[in-house]
Amino acid sequence: MKQADLVIVGGSAAGIEAAIVAQRHYELDKVVVIRKEDSVMVPCGIPYIFGTLGSIDKNVMPDSLLGDAELIKDEVTSIDRSSQTVTTAGGEAVKYKRLMLASGSQPLRPPIPGMQLENVFAIPKEAEYLRQVQDGLSASSNLVIIGGGFIGVEFADECRKLGINVTVVEMLDHCLMLALDEQFCCTAEDNLRESGVNIITGNGVRALHGQSRVEWVELQDGTRLEADAVIVAIGVSPCTKLALDAGLEIGAQRGIQVDAYMRTSDSQIFAAGDCAETFCYFTRKAVPLRLAAIATREARLATMNLFEDVAPNQGAVGVFSTVVGDTGFCAAGLTEKRARDVGLDVMTAEAAGPDRHPGTMPGASGQKTKLVFERGTGKMLGGQASGGTSTGEIANVMAALISAGSTARDVATFQIGTHPALTASPIAYQIVNAAEHALVRGR
Amino acid sequence: MKQADLVIVGGSAAGIEAAIVAQRHYELDKVVVIRKEDSVMVPCGIPYIFGTLGSIDKNVMPDSLLGDAELIKDEVTSIDRSSQTVTTAGGEAVKYKRLMLASGSQPLRPPIPGMQLENVFAIPKEAEYLRQVQDGLSASSNLVIIGGGFIGVEFADECRKLGINVTVVEMLDHCLMLALDEQFCCTAEDNLRESGVNIITGNGVRALHGQSRVEWVELQDGTRLEADAVIVAIGVSPCTKLALDAGLEIGAQRGIQVDAYMRTSDSQIFAAGDCAETFCYFTRKAVPLRLAAIATREARLATMNLFEDVAPNQGAVGVFSTVVGDTGFCAAGLTEKRARDVGLDVMTAEAAGPDRHPGTMPGASGQKTKLVFERGTGKMLGGQASGGTSTGEIANVMAALISAGSTARDVATFQIGTHPALTASPIAYQIVNAAEHALVRGR
Repeated sequence: MKQADLVIVGGSAAGIEAAIVAQRHYELDKVVVIRKEDSVMVPCGIPYIFGTLGSIDKNVMPDSLLGDAELIKDEVTSIDRSSQTVTTAGGEAVKYKRLMLASGSQPLRPPIPGMQLENVFAIPKEAEYLRQVQDGLSASSNLVIIGGGFIGVEFADECRKLGINVTVVEMLDHCLMLALDEQFCCTAEDNLRESGVNIITGNGVRALHGQSRVEWVELQDGTRLEADAVIVAIGVSPCTKLALDAGLEIGAQRGIQVDAYMRTSDSQIFAAGDCAETFCYFTRKAVPLRLAAIATREARLATMNLFEDVAPNQGAVGVFSTVVGDTGFCAAGLTEKRARDVGLDVMTAEAAGPDRHPGTMPGASGQKTKLVFERGTGKMLGGQASGGTSTGEIANVMAALISAGSTARDVATFQIGTHPALTASPIAYQIVNAAEHALVRGR
Repeated sequence: MKQADLVIVGGSAAGIEAAIVAQRHYELDKVVVIRKEDSVMVPCGIPYIFGTLGSIDKNVMPDSLLGDAELIKDEVTSIDRSSQTVTTAGGEAVKYKRLMLASGSQPLRPPIPGMQLENVFAIPKEAEYLRQVQDGLSASSNLVIIGGGFIGVEFADECRKLGINVTVVEMLDHCLMLALDEQFCCTAEDNLRESGVNIITGNGVRALHGQSRVEWVELQDGTRLEADAVIVAIGVSPCTKLALDAGLEIGAQRGIQVDAYMRTSDSQIFAAGDCAETFCYFTRKAVPLRLAAIATREARLATMNLFEDVAPNQGAVGVFSTVVGDTGFCAAGLTEKRARDVGLDVMTAEAAGPDRHPGTMPGASGQKTKLVFERGTGKMLGGQASGGTSTGEIANVMAALISAGSTARDVATFQIGTHPALTASPIAYQIVNAAEHALVRGR
């Protein structure tokens, strides 16, 4: 029987990261990665296959990332915890010293009539399925996207570039509302509308109709939307069947329960990524945050802790970024709404201005920043921004500040660097200025 | 006699920031800003006047930034500390409760023969003088820039765009060597050479020659460089005459001595920016770091502390960014060389890859990152990167991590956010990966 120091189940973000980190940190005789996919998609790149990239092949994560780990393309069907062995559909058995479950998630499919119709697509991270989506969209002229979260909005923005009529249907009051406060959501919606996307919010889907292929979408208020293709992007559900069958504990958010060292209820088995339970840095409670960058962080922590407890997980700070139209949006930590919803006493502050200095520098974009602090302690709870392409790293500036437990004073006085062609001016640097406003307001 | 709660001497970065912060934090009856310039240049924008912006007028900081502060365009000629009054060249006297010295710096002029020749320019931050430089350069075809620091390199890059032959002469082994480690300096030099800039390093200037206008530059090794214009960019010297005349203490780096609250040796007088002494976050020793973002931070701290000790200065973390050719460069904290020079036991780690994911995303640039940590404590001492336009904010991610006292483990496990069009992939995010390499190496 094949034996390995570490067997990793799953070959997407968390699985790859675990393989990389294991080889960085330990001198292991053998690391085995078992995944069912022939090739692995860059998860966050999937919407961009349909417009910007124009090709599935351009969105492949190379297997060379796995280094010296052995790759087995097969599906793990069971875990025998007593003999520390996994068995695959192809009949292979591998004995492990440590097992990493990185089985990911699958798209949620809402329990509505018509989901089985042709050209109704959820978006699993599978190249073959995505080819079907590509084919389906190429023969479509009216696309309805159910769900206005990041994936829905990114698909809308990209599919619109194909010349398809796109309608987004979002149940909440605004698109992106779980990630951004209303003002940023509205800007993103305005951008989408300007590019020709139709947005319907505060409304759900009652049913999908058609003969064999979808023909129209019926909303909860009776509205009829013509549709020859539907994309469902209402979230994901952790893949936990293997863990469940093996008797591992499952958490409140339906992920595999892990401790602070990412260990499951079996001390030889770890879990990371979308399949694992994630807890919030602020509230310490389980949260359904499922992002590639959270998956890789969890995999990094879990792998560091495989053979000794070295790096406890402090919890997840959600950090997002995206682009809608030509505008970048980002968020780190809690939105104002979310912070209030979990019962925190918050104060917020904002700043706006160009992201270059002087504002006459070529490539300058308008930038807006909003920070959220806890009243009393002054702790930074979150930040959001919209602007140019530097927005992605601005999220990481905010994330670094939040992760360090910074207060409004820390943020208002930390040393920034600036350059005319790269950043806002030192007088107008928004994270610092917004923090200073909060500091004054909090006195 | 005019009376003010706060009189600010100087209207550039530190002076403006002090005026803004004073009005944010306090309800003062009167803030007066006294500056001699008719209009104020964006300091870091000055090189860009000559190429990218093409105009001095596009590089003006609007006086509206001063808000309700009264602006007096005049030169302060003396401070009477006993009566708490400043007097101007125009004969105005203003009584202050607190005085903020933000008198800035002036370009150093090397003591070499020929400095008085026509078309030899230092670069004070004065619009009128810059017009002369513009006129001088427009009639020139061979420019020699003395000094290959940020200003020299930025001028070289910009003036080359005007079609002028440009030669940079740097005494150290490489351009940008005070800010970046050798590998990044070499990339910047390669970029400059590719754009046609001639670079001479490890060589100084012995004399400038010519009849009335400069005609050639003589180097220390005897080399003759044809030149009908010379720009001197070898650093700046703090403007401290007022402070000196008033009997205030001056520090080791020739700036006005200040305590942790930015107070001078007179407790009613504060100083901030290029005119003030700056101490290093790491070594606690005085350092000649003179950057707009340090000036504004010092002004922010000084102003917060005007009426009570609220925000002690933890010292300056140098944070720089610039663009050479199409490549952004940045640094935060200590370079490896600097860290070794000050006697720290360091370990370094590097990472490289595209700044988008997949790397096939449009706009992707190659990015390189190097981090410097203290061996033993694992404390992050510095970071450098080259790459695309997000480099400016990457400097601020590093700065936030350093300012928070992060260790290699903190950096290797902090939560980042990523997006295909905005950042590297979560598997390849370089700051995190380099920190992880350092963590493994440091065990």
